[in-house]
Amino acid sequence: MAEAEAEIRALIDQRIGAMRAKDAAGATAYLTADVVAFELAPPLALAPGAAADVQGLAAWLSGFSEIEIEVRDLAIEAGDCVGFARALHHLKGTRTDGRPVSLWMRSTLCFRRQDGAWRIAHAHTSVPFHMDGSFRAAVELQP
Amino acid sequence: MAEAEAEIRALIDQRIGAMRAKDAAGATAYLTADVVAFELAPPLALAPGAAADVQGLAAWLSGFSEIEIEVRDLAIEAGDCVGFARALHHLKGTRTDGRPVSLWMRSTLCFRRQDGAWRIAHAHTSVPFHMDGSFRAAVELQP
Repeated sequence: MAEAEAEIRALIDQRIGAMRAKDAAGATAYLTADVVAFELAPPLALAPGAAADVQGLAAWLSGFSEIEIEVRDLAIEAGDCVGFARALHHLKGTRTDGRPVSLWMRSTLCFRRQDGAWRIAHAHTSVPFHMDGSFRAAVELQP
Repeated sequence: MAEAEAEIRALIDQRIGAMRAKDAAGATAYLTADVVAFELAPPLALAPGAAADVQGLAAWLSGFSEIEIEVRDLAIEAGDCVGFARALHHLKGTRTDGRPVSLWMRSTLCFRRQDGAWRIAHAHTSVPFHMDGSFRAAVELQP
């Protein structure tokens, strides 16, 4: 479904744009009210809807003086009412205390079409971890 | 689409059953030839199709004398030709060297309907990591 995939691609572009602009309300507008997110940090899963909380995202964004997200290897598949997108994201920026941030992560977004628009019903973001006994997140990886 | 969701639920049950039986050919039969997997271990992404390699899964399974996977909080949404499932998985077992394994992880599976059957086109499995500066994977978490 080329049209659905184009709509989802546009949504992702708009959401990344909102993140860059530190527009928390804009970025959370693309999430369903019952979105379940698996995030980089614990817990295993956020409670339904928690990822759509504007204040939570605003607090996270406020930790950055500058933020950039590069999207790589984006692949989208969509049907009539469900779709998904997978990509690698490069989070780059500067924290308000001056520390630079540069982290590659994996992103999977799952979409539901409701009221005529695509919305993110599930988001899974992660970094793999080393199996050498250190259990250290592989934050140094590059694609 | 209740019928599609029931079909995907049955597929997941069968795949978990194959994993428990250490049947690598059975478990990989549910993956598309171009499946892209984001796994617990590096790299960021496996090459397309690599996760469908029977030998690779067989080698992993051969590291266990006993393996059990508990699926919790499974949620499935599906349309005409695309679907997704999210869940928490508890990997429990004993490695061949006698070490016990007990790890909760997040699983997202994205499905494509092709040739009349649902297949896994994308799989994302992860553990979050601690944001306390240790970068340690949170392998101790429980839901």
